[in-house]
Amino acid sequence: MKIKSIDHIAIATQDPDGFRHFFETLLGIAFAGSEVVEREGVTTHFYPVQGTSLEVLEPLNAESGVARFIEKRGPGLHHIALSVEGLDAMVFKLRQTGIQFTTDSPVPGAHGKRIIFIHPKSTGGVLIELSEQSANA
Amino acid sequence: MKIKSIDHIAIATQDPDGFRHFFETLLGIAFAGSEVVEREGVTTHFYPVQGTSLEVLEPLNAESGVARFIEKRGPGLHHIALSVEGLDAMVFKLRQTGIQFTTDSPVPGAHGKRIIFIHPKSTGGVLIELSEQSANA
Repeated sequence: MKIKSIDHIAIATQDPDGFRHFFETLLGIAFAGSEVVEREGVTTHFYPVQGTSLEVLEPLNAESGVARFIEKRGPGLHHIALSVEGLDAMVFKLRQTGIQFTTDSPVPGAHGKRIIFIHPKSTGGVLIELSEQSANA
Repeated sequence: MKIKSIDHIAIATQDPDGFRHFFETLLGIAFAGSEVVEREGVTTHFYPVQGTSLEVLEPLNAESGVARFIEKRGPGLHHIALSVEGLDAMVFKLRQTGIQFTTDSPVPGAHGKRIIFIHPKSTGGVLIELSEQSANA
């Protein structure tokens, strides 16, 4: 049970093409593809960087949590995701200390991972995702 | 001239001890020390993770840009820093395309690096730091 790496840093935007221009054309960070994650209400656009990844989140509709985030705070940094070894044990342990999650248990995320979000109330203001590769992915 | 890695992800807070408890005690991410960066008006607390770092920014005073950020938006994700090879050439190239920076040229940052911030207006809402190790650091 440990944090292995920073899986990704997520950015919320209604303008994924603007970020693609900025990351790929101006900074030279290659675009590596997109994936729709229906459950989170987003299309995720991937920009891998040296063992971690910048992920641009584009809301699928106005009800998406990411759309509401943009409406409330404007586009920008949305969350950080930590890659965990032993996700279920870590969630159990954190819950025992009073840490609150936004769902009861991990749910399917992009790239065949199981993910769960810690509520920003429990982290001092940062939305943190914990993720682990599914055994059957 | 290229992006080598994500140097760090910075979090603004008035409660660095709360983050230390969360990162170190609850998640097992070891604290690696602190550094005062007078020019940015912060004490930076370092939590290295697999080739990158979580950095907790604590404002030194109420005039600090980070203090104003917290007052306006609350504590949370503040910026991401990209490690660049060939910083001056990249800044020159980006400026030619119309990208705006918050200072005229790179300034001293933590860990003996030279740093410069791209204005969020030029990135679609994300404050992005570009950094390079100084030749004489």
